[in-house]
Amino acid sequence: MPEILHQLTIRARPAQVYRALTTAEALAAWWTRDVVAEPAIGSVAQFGFNRREVVFRMFVQELEEEKRVRWRCLGGHPEWRDTEITLSLSAVADGTVVRFAHGGWKSSDGILAVCSFDWACYLASLKSYLETGCGSPHPG
Amino acid sequence: MPEILHQLTIRARPAQVYRALTTAEALAAWWTRDVVAEPAIGSVAQFGFNRREVVFRMFVQELEEEKRVRWRCLGGHPEWRDTEITLSLSAVADGTVVRFAHGGWKSSDGILAVCSFDWACYLASLKSYLETGCGSPHPG
Repeated sequence: MPEILHQLTIRARPAQVYRALTTAEALAAWWTRDVVAEPAIGSVAQFGFNRREVVFRMFVQELEEEKRVRWRCLGGHPEWRDTEITLSLSAVADGTVVRFAHGGWKSSDGILAVCSFDWACYLASLKSYLETGCGSPHPG
Repeated sequence: MPEILHQLTIRARPAQVYRALTTAEALAAWWTRDVVAEPAIGSVAQFGFNRREVVFRMFVQELEEEKRVRWRCLGGHPEWRDTEITLSLSAVADGTVVRFAHGGWKSSDGILAVCSFDWACYLASLKSYLETGCGSPHPG
């Protein structure tokens, strides 16, 4: 089954990266300004794009502090439905290795390639937010 | 078989994107400054990183002007050996859609995820080079 994989090293501690993946304030600083989220397993986070033309609803399936965040996508785009996004963190000498996986795609023929590029751009924004205080989130 | 896929739209004509993928001068402006390349099927292009600590050698397998570039990797990293990189271009109203595929990986457990993120960064550099004149190539 096709999946999107990305891995990068961020010069920040795992606790800081974990916070940036789980709190609304930080998610709004690197992914999209239109966020409803709380760091609670079983909650449903919402990420809006283009004035709510698209809203990704994510069931927060797993949260392990400083280690892992896992969302199951409930909707927003037909190809995203029931896909899973996992961000795994590992401490290294100079920061945190972030491994990103977006799996469960039925096909790689549709929007997967566009999403793979876009995810990398948002992960670069996450890195910049944590290293410089300045991300490049979508305006929402 | 695992593959890296990315897709992006660049505000430049297919002829300009094709040139940026096939001439040494342009490749040096967005991928790595250490380039030996010529737009000739059957030639072997070389892309050096970290003062030639790593040199990717690419057999230029296919060149279709304004449409497609395909390289087969002869070496540089064991996991890249015999993988294939294809960049396909399609004209659209506001520029060119670039579809990037790096296929033939034996496994997604090794450096694939790092390469996926890095490729997206270099494709963003290609876009910036073509749209603003300014890329962010590796110093080589």
